[in-house]
Amino acid sequence: MSSPTAILQMICPDQPGLVRELSGWVASNGGNIVHADHHSDQGAGLFLSRIEWELEGFGLPRDAICPTAHALAERLKGEYKVNFSDFRPPVAIFVSKQDHCLLDLLWRTRTGELPMQVPLVISNHPDLAPMAEEFGAHFEHVPVDPACKELAEARHLELLAHHGIELVVLAKYMQVLTPSFLTAFDPPDAFHQVINIHHSFLPAFTGAKPYHRAWDRGVKLIGATAHYVSEELDGGPIIAQETVPVGHRDGVEDLIRKGRDTERLALARAVRLHLKRQVMVYGSRTAVFD
Amino acid sequence: MSSPTAILQMICPDQPGLVRELSGWVASNGGNIVHADHHSDQGAGLFLSRIEWELEGFGLPRDAICPTAHALAERLKGEYKVNFSDFRPPVAIFVSKQDHCLLDLLWRTRTGELPMQVPLVISNHPDLAPMAEEFGAHFEHVPVDPACKELAEARHLELLAHHGIELVVLAKYMQVLTPSFLTAFDPPDAFHQVINIHHSFLPAFTGAKPYHRAWDRGVKLIGATAHYVSEELDGGPIIAQETVPVGHRDGVEDLIRKGRDTERLALARAVRLHLKRQVMVYGSRTAVFD
Amino acid sequence: MSSPTAILQMICPDQPGLVRELSGWVASNGGNIVHADHHSDQGAGLFLSRIEWELEGFGLPRDAICPTAHALAERLKGEYKVNFSDFRPPVAIFVSKQDHCLLDLLWRTRTGELPMQVPLVISNHPDLAPMAEEFGAHFEHVPVDPACKELAEARHLELLAHHGIELVVLAKYMQVLTPSFLTAFDPPDAFHQVINIHHSFLPAFTGAKPYHRAWDRGVKLIGATAHYVSEELDGGPIIAQETVPVGHRDGVEDLIRKGRDTERLALARAVRLHLKRQVMVYGSRTAVFD
Amino acid sequence: MSSPTAILQMICPDQPGLVRELSGWVASNGGNIVHADHHSDQGAGLFLSRIEWELEGFGLPRDAICPTAHALAERLKGEYKVNFSDFRPPVAIFVSKQDHCLLDLLWRTRTGELPMQVPLVISNHPDLAPMAEEFGAHFEHVPVDPACKELAEARHLELLAHHGIELVVLAKYMQVLTPSFLTAFDPPDAFHQVINIHHSFLPAFTGAKPYHRAWDRGVKLIGATAHYVSEELDGGPIIAQETVPVGHRDGVEDLIRKGRDTERLALARAVRLHLKRQVMVYGSRTAVFD
Repeated sequence: MSSPTAILQMICPDQPGLVRELSGWVASNGGNIVHADHHSDQGAGLFLSRIEWELEGFGLPRDAICPTAHALAERLKGEYKVNFSDFRPPVAIFVSKQDHCLLDLLWRTRTGELPMQVPLVISNHPDLAPMAEEFGAHFEHVPVDPACKELAEARHLELLAHHGIELVVLAKYMQVLTPSFLTAFDPPDAFHQVINIHHSFLPAFTGAKPYHRAWDRGVKLIGATAHYVSEELDGGPIIAQETVPVGHRDGVEDLIRKGRDTERLALARAVRLHLKRQVMVYGSRTAVFD
Repeated sequence: MSSPTAILQMICPDQPGLVRELSGWVASNGGNIVHADHHSDQGAGLFLSRIEWELEGFGLPRDAICPTAHALAERLKGEYKVNFSDFRPPVAIFVSKQDHCLLDLLWRTRTGELPMQVPLVISNHPDLAPMAEEFGAHFEHVPVDPACKELAEARHLELLAHHGIELVVLAKYMQVLTPSFLTAFDPPDAFHQVINIHHSFLPAFTGAKPYHRAWDRGVKLIGATAHYVSEELDGGPIIAQETVPVGHRDGVEDLIRKGRDTERLALARAVRLHLKRQVMVYGSRTAVFD
Repeated sequence: MSSPTAILQMICPDQPGLVRELSGWVASNGGNIVHADHHSDQGAGLFLSRIEWELEGFGLPRDAICPTAHALAERLKGEYKVNFSDFRPPVAIFVSKQDHCLLDLLWRTRTGELPMQVPLVISNHPDLAPMAEEFGAHFEHVPVDPACKELAEARHLELLAHHGIELVVLAKYMQVLTPSFLTAFDPPDAFHQVINIHHSFLPAFTGAKPYHRAWDRGVKLIGATAHYVSEELDGGPIIAQETVPVGHRDGVEDLIRKGRDTERLALARAVRLHLKRQVMVYGSRTAVFD
Repeated sequence: MSSPTAILQMICPDQPGLVRELSGWVASNGGNIVHADHHSDQGAGLFLSRIEWELEGFGLPRDAICPTAHALAERLKGEYKVNFSDFRPPVAIFVSKQDHCLLDLLWRTRTGELPMQVPLVISNHPDLAPMAEEFGAHFEHVPVDPACKELAEARHLELLAHHGIELVVLAKYMQVLTPSFLTAFDPPDAFHQVINIHHSFLPAFTGAKPYHRAWDRGVKLIGATAHYVSEELDGGPIIAQETVPVGHRDGVEDLIRKGRDTERLALARAVRLHLKRQVMVYGSRTAVFD
């Protein structure tokens, strides 16, 4: 369909002339800009930018783009990332026993809707091995002993490294990752690498059993929240949220059933936005350029 | 348009035969049922019912219906209420300085969308007097001294009694009512008489400044919740909730602006459901027969 | 979980006393009603009712319920249907090449969310055989020659009869069924047996290529409509509709992608409502008791 | 609050370097860009751009900006418009008998939510004079004789000219404007000046009595569409659409009641987007930069 593009994401201190600076850099190399999105957060004094341009006709070869962007970022005292639209990064999906998010992500990957590959599925339970394998992913059962979580996470890191994983998606993985795992796989910078789906409309019902608590509270809408994982439980930057109406006839089982649809939609939307490099994090917030 | 109807709401311990019992009572007096809604909460062992029938052709005169329903409720060990569709109960609206919910409620009353009359508007600020008076309501400015809230609430009760008020709507009234006010105006039973609009998607952001906190958290949807008032702050039974998407370009002011629309909609919907006698409370939950 | 129930659906001319009549019939046999829903359409002079009661403790054995309901319906000059909640009717799914609705329905069936079995998948293309077979359904490739559709439909009817199919779901089956097929499989009465998903917000964009036409028109929301099939193309009674926002950045391909989610949701919701016997048809309209 | 800004909207044939060109023009005059939005429509070969920058510190005085932009547009063979955020353009509202959209627009103008002034309300009926006058607008009753519409429209044009009206909002004005009126007030270019609210989810139910037809069709959602007016009835470029669920208990009157809320929301959103200069028209479509 469309020819491949390069995408530059840049976060730097705000100052006049940045749009010209970034678009000028692309244009001076003969690039045709397809999308240019910018956001200034005046409170934080930050400028966020995403520029996407056609590789065809662009003066720099692919492997020269990153170093040049690096120099630009240094000058602007910013953080940056360069990606190419035709690259499908290796993504690992973590699951427990529930299969709806896993199936949805694998199916969307197969249709091409999610531009990624899924070489690896990790679970603390053996149940979903057949589903993972049917879609060509290696399934690894890594039991988690609460008394010695580090053991399991050491294995996780080993597997992630072996498969060259760039993004981890927690697709109803019912375990909390430790800070040391996060430090190792997703060092603190502007570009996060772990996405989680939480089955409530955060910040309502953080923690365990949100549907039971939503039922107890008698809410009229339930929700799901896809967010980057940070050290604070269910406190990371939010990417997407979905809600669905519920009524007095809905028991906890019905909330769980209806919730599955919002979970699938919010998670798939967040993963797609991430892969399209349309999400930028600043502080505990995200800008979504869609 | 349609001829007047009677509405019986009944809450009682669940047992077989209740639908027949209630519909039989209406039918045996020649009533033609327009709506019959029931809900059994198996956990609580409760049966909730709302039956609406045409008064035309009904064997009992209006003033005999309530005593008969009373006897029925006694036999079923339940709580009940009888209303007539052509009665427009006197409702008082409490406000502070913001006018959007007040204007919306007064306008919907004038169009007939809300079957009520508004003889009284009470505020702790004088600002909205002209708006109240333009729609024919008496406006009473009752300043609230935090050190002596009882004084103001004594005046409130006096005014409510004088105008024969049946329902109080807190339309962005930025004061918390005391338990003693609630006990006096809205004694604890199954039929509540005070509705509040809270400017968040409860139970997220209970208490003060929810939009500021929603902005800080970086949520992607904001909401509003209309609920009956109970002694627990923002903890009463929820009647209606609305949400609206927000994005990174929205500052706190934009959240407040967008929130006004959800507040108006959720509050108007809740008040209408209450007036149509379509809401039934059990514990901290509501059944909404719409 | 919950014990099995019986469900009676009845449509008959409206008259006073019908709620008592139906609930009385259940109660007089010792039945405990779980749900009782009624609707009177005053313009059409029709009464629609759905009553669900526990089989445990009910005085009549299962095979005596239908004849008794039959007598009741005769007396009320109505149409009726009796179902049992623990019966999972055999459903056939018709598809062409797109797999999203098929996968979604099969997965929801496996989780128990859709109380049905799917012994048969029919397609005018061979592509989806592996998916059907993986979920244990027999897949039958029945090519359709436009010049001689009757041939294919004769085969369809044969297969449906052989598998004892009660409901046909057209899950992106890109062929129009002939009136003679409908007459044979789904004779004209109050209880329809063929559900279709149309990829637009009906009645906008009936017929072919709705996403292309939606894009041309520049709409800001697209939708999907699940409806019973009637002789009029895309004109049958609507069961469920879903919409999703689109913007100027969305090309036709994006509309198709976003539309898949609304199609899955609307179709799954409609099939579940049908299987729970919560949909009743009158004229070109449905009442949905949810 | 925020300091005033200038907004440049530009539509021109697409070519590489346009983002740099436009942002460079602002930056070379010392402007600090607050928002920069661009869209390329590849099918149409068009580039659409909206740039907003702070006037404080900008090198050109206000009255020099337009001529310079004019020269820029000539060079790019484009159409353009320059606006200033602190200017509140005079807007005329056309109504018939229904007051909900008028009241909503006047109230939002008073709160500052809609950055405009409303010096003039025109109606073919006298009913809404008090409402217009209460908000300080001149009300003019211009009866419309279907046999001689030109007479009324000549008076409209006279009034619009006299009040220096820049935008006309049809807020449930139940008359179709003639092509000659449009040609005179809103000459065909990229910047439209007449917004209408249609009470259906276009393109469903164009023309008269959409709620009645929606009820007949048995839809499960109704909608409202705010669009620029073109010569084709209900065929102009869509700016905003809203939907709301309806059910079998909703009669036509309920659809009309629920529809009023969607109409108010869609129209207010469209007018605000227009006034913020966030809407750009190309062909029969709009790009909305929000």
